[in-house]
Amino acid sequence: MSTKTLVNINGKVVTPELATVSVFDRGFLYGDSVYEVTMTKNGIPFMMEAHLDRLESSASKIGLPLPFNRDEITNQVINTVKELGSTKCYVRIVCTRGEGEITLDPTADQVGNFILITKELPEYPRHWYEKGVWMVISDVVRNHQRSTDPSVKSGNYLNNVLAMGEAKRAGAFDAIMLNHQGMVSEGTTSNIWMVKDETFITPPLDAGLLGGITRQSLLDMGKNNGLKMLEENISPEQIKAADEVFLTSTTKEIVPIVKIDDQIIGNAQPGVNTRKLHVMYQELMENHYKSEKSRLNI
Amino acid sequence: MSTKTLVNINGKVVTPELATVSVFDRGFLYGDSVYEVTMTKNGIPFMMEAHLDRLESSASKIGLPLPFNRDEITNQVINTVKELGSTKCYVRIVCTRGEGEITLDPTADQVGNFILITKELPEYPRHWYEKGVWMVISDVVRNHQRSTDPSVKSGNYLNNVLAMGEAKRAGAFDAIMLNHQGMVSEGTTSNIWMVKDETFITPPLDAGLLGGITRQSLLDMGKNNGLKMLEENISPEQIKAADEVFLTSTTKEIVPIVKIDDQIIGNAQPGVNTRKLHVMYQELMENHYKSEKSRLNI
Repeated sequence: MSTKTLVNINGKVVTPELATVSVFDRGFLYGDSVYEVTMTKNGIPFMMEAHLDRLESSASKIGLPLPFNRDEITNQVINTVKELGSTKCYVRIVCTRGEGEITLDPTADQVGNFILITKELPEYPRHWYEKGVWMVISDVVRNHQRSTDPSVKSGNYLNNVLAMGEAKRAGAFDAIMLNHQGMVSEGTTSNIWMVKDETFITPPLDAGLLGGITRQSLLDMGKNNGLKMLEENISPEQIKAADEVFLTSTTKEIVPIVKIDDQIIGNAQPGVNTRKLHVMYQELMENHYKSEKSRLNI
Repeated sequence: MSTKTLVNINGKVVTPELATVSVFDRGFLYGDSVYEVTMTKNGIPFMMEAHLDRLESSASKIGLPLPFNRDEITNQVINTVKELGSTKCYVRIVCTRGEGEITLDPTADQVGNFILITKELPEYPRHWYEKGVWMVISDVVRNHQRSTDPSVKSGNYLNNVLAMGEAKRAGAFDAIMLNHQGMVSEGTTSNIWMVKDETFITPPLDAGLLGGITRQSLLDMGKNNGLKMLEENISPEQIKAADEVFLTSTTKEIVPIVKIDDQIIGNAQPGVNTRKLHVMYQELMENHYKSEKSRLNI
């Protein structure tokens, strides 16, 4: 590992070299696990309640019992990043259905594993935000909701790995994935937005995507501040003809997209509405950290 | 583990308790791995060449470099089951894209891991073969070929885990999965067949399924012996109206299905054509072991 890293396995904190799971763990054998990624600043977890809600939702949708409850998970995060001691930390929470006999049967007797990966979160390159990034539209279609539901953040991410691989081989930043109707679903680990005539538009949940925490924060924040926010299906043609395009994710926040495939977006620069939204969002983040510091007594 | 088990990790044989992988392995994080399951009898691997072909095909389709070549994998299997010392062994070969920084990007620098799980293969219950089993048709739709291609035997098996869970909660043996066109694709770890008017019918590869080694052996064997073998799409209505239905898998061979959902198949007993095919197949297996013993010099 090139950055400072600590791993918490079922409550025990170890260095990365000692951080292992059994090859009989269903997370390893079948991707039979759920996970969340958040971050901490000065030891304070970001949007912990929303991430726990989503972890519980993912687990419930695939009938996976979580090995720790909400308070225990929050405390493990707080204590592990304290031990890591970095100002900003990446936090990955993985819960598996556990180990047992080799069988696909999820009702078999097994005890879940809890794995928490924390590492120093370096600043992302300034040019992502100042110059924007280039995305491709992937040929790999996002998993269908009736097959491997994208609203479940699970250990089955090969679909996204293949789309990301396509983007990287093309030299792009990342990929936009379409659903089986040919409409925009999401990025490989982000939500996708466009701005058209001062209106912010992102695909609805039933486009088959993971409901991003940042996505929901922006929808709420925008509406509370009199911005026009819409959840509507977006075609590849529509997104390429947008005034501005951006992606959102917990750790990356808001990244402007200035090119999709061969199509330049707007004036090839991060848009004014995108920048305005990011400034508002960073203020929201600061206020959130302040209230969480007090709520969690950190 | 309740049965005798040994695990080979990158060439080193360990007991199950010591058989671990890093939590940073992409097989654990994303299901970014490929695998095969075969068996051995008296130390002789079953259909090793066909399993290696399929392992290479899966790896190639997702651009995953295999850490060992064909001869090395065969030798690891032979040596590990020799150490296990059981007459019949279950063999699971898993190759992952390896460990590295946490990123979906499959083109990032990482070294693959090779994991070989061998364990004593107990005889399956006689009643499966003598009385037949009950299957349900799952509400979980098999992954689409343009999303997470079922012809790739990868670490993304949540789709099948959920279908199997549905079957187990209903009290059934296993599930039959349909594709997005509503036609039969496959079982969760098996291929599905029906017999109608003395003709053996199984869905074609483009129904979105894993091309089973047993499936191909039966197609070839049947044709060579003057049986009518067809690869044709099968609807749920057609399979429920079949004279006989069965599933095939490397370790389970041929298991008669006598009930699907609430529908009794044929006369509720394993069919005469199914039994005849199984006898022919067991003879083929014996001959195969003999020629492999000589070819591999075991």
